[in-house]
Amino acid sequence: MSSSLLVIGTVAFDNLETPFGKADMVVGGAATYAGLSASYFTPYTSIVSVVGEDFPQSFINTFREHKINTEGLQIKKGEKSFFWAGKYHIDMNTRDTLDTQLNVLADFDPVVPENLRSSEYLLLGNLMPKLQLRVLEQMAVRPKLVVMDTMNFWMETALDDLKLVLKQVDVLTINDEEARLLSGEYSLVKAAKKIMNMGPQYLIIKKGENGALLFRDNKVFFAPALPLEDVFDPTGAGDSFAGGFIGYMAATDDISFENMRRAIIYGSAMASFTVEKFGTERLVNIKEDEVATRIQSFVNLMQVDMELN
Amino acid sequence: MSSSLLVIGTVAFDNLETPFGKADMVVGGAATYAGLSASYFTPYTSIVSVVGEDFPQSFINTFREHKINTEGLQIKKGEKSFFWAGKYHIDMNTRDTLDTQLNVLADFDPVVPENLRSSEYLLLGNLMPKLQLRVLEQMAVRPKLVVMDTMNFWMETALDDLKLVLKQVDVLTINDEEARLLSGEYSLVKAAKKIMNMGPQYLIIKKGENGALLFRDNKVFFAPALPLEDVFDPTGAGDSFAGGFIGYMAATDDISFENMRRAIIYGSAMASFTVEKFGTERLVNIKEDEVATRIQSFVNLMQVDMELN
Repeated sequence: MSSSLLVIGTVAFDNLETPFGKADMVVGGAATYAGLSASYFTPYTSIVSVVGEDFPQSFINTFREHKINTEGLQIKKGEKSFFWAGKYHIDMNTRDTLDTQLNVLADFDPVVPENLRSSEYLLLGNLMPKLQLRVLEQMAVRPKLVVMDTMNFWMETALDDLKLVLKQVDVLTINDEEARLLSGEYSLVKAAKKIMNMGPQYLIIKKGENGALLFRDNKVFFAPALPLEDVFDPTGAGDSFAGGFIGYMAATDDISFENMRRAIIYGSAMASFTVEKFGTERLVNIKEDEVATRIQSFVNLMQVDMELN
Repeated sequence: MSSSLLVIGTVAFDNLETPFGKADMVVGGAATYAGLSASYFTPYTSIVSVVGEDFPQSFINTFREHKINTEGLQIKKGEKSFFWAGKYHIDMNTRDTLDTQLNVLADFDPVVPENLRSSEYLLLGNLMPKLQLRVLEQMAVRPKLVVMDTMNFWMETALDDLKLVLKQVDVLTINDEEARLLSGEYSLVKAAKKIMNMGPQYLIIKKGENGALLFRDNKVFFAPALPLEDVFDPTGAGDSFAGGFIGYMAATDDISFENMRRAIIYGSAMASFTVEKFGTERLVNIKEDEVATRIQSFVNLMQVDMELN
């Protein structure tokens, strides 16, 4: 029996440019990718976010087709949705931000609908730490598991707020550069120790095509990324990862370290779909047996029998 | 029952500088690291290489203490050993070569002693491709498994010879940048396909702290690197990896893909020891139970039970 999952984050328009092509005004944002990704695991996924009047009803229908509850998605009349334009280089690990227009995000005050305030799983997707705090405050019951995603921008501009959120979350997901920035340590092992001292009991360090590390006390688990012929567009990979991770956790309702190891493989599998096409094009169209087949690819990739022969 | 292993490559002096310190005139070289690493698995390891009169007898004794046969190690009177000086930066993945003095290597003609010409396992350590060919020519029997290590320098300066060697080896080990250089493909999956078409049935792409990939036809195995508090000195990590890999293969005498997966973990474990101290300082002093403990760390790192719960 799946548990309820609440996802907050942006819902936005993106202009994307990669070595494989360009796409303009595609729907993106952290809550979009994370919510869609989670929806493959739990039918009780809700999003809290904000868009402008320009946001297409067709995409709200897409959310609903994925059984995502959009009660908490504010639609601001006469305003425009958050907009981001970025360009990726051949290595896909670095990107240039070409344009950012906050629009509705500038004065967004997230409101968690009454009936979602006792959601059992909470994903604080990448957003201003102040807004992540605002959502935490509104929860009637402390969720079983709170996962926080954030980025270097907030470390540079809102570190104090970010540290307040950190104290209240169970799992933090950031990339390797962000782990170094937040901790001041180059070694990821040292960085992980410092960051876990800031609050979260678990730390996931995402390394893109080089996989992800899950830290807990002195234990560490490594999940590889699936080697792909081409990474078409990495936008949303991290959000799809976080959504798949917490979606699987909510679906299985087991917050053990062992289950988190599995959840990371599911998160990685969802990210591997997202990067196959532009924007959410692939993520909105995954068949159930494709998830199972992809998971099997990960099992094959990691399979080794270390019994001595 | 272990099989016989022949290792060719350099035996040299290195000046090393890392963010953690400096060490001058430490014994290094591909055959040194690979031979020592392999010696933990098979007692029938021999090296073919060349040094000058300046090479310390004490280190030849070190080889012998590790039961390494040094019959094929030429000692040139009145000449100096190969010398390399390098400096690593904080990310340890990039290094500057400060000095290279070929010395005895300039006119090295490797001679495989008669009794080693039917060695069952052969590691063509990083060396001029012409010299790797010279060794292959001298083998009386085609070894069960030939592993070749090489580097970008030979791709840039001796590509035709390198391609001749490639046609005759079973396994090639190179790093990700070298795989891209050799294939002209950015995607490692595409690069692997092209490179396997050049001869080797198996390709190992080493990614340093990001682990290693083993390709065979359309199959791929990923082995993580052990997350370490500090990488003290990465010199010799790749050679230790190759030596541990083929040493384990020779010790188990099983050239199946399944056994290669295990061998990669053993190679990674040996590399993880090497980087803990300067030069071979750690590699010459590993206790048997330390290898077993390190292997267990890798098993813990990779352990996930994907049975659905």
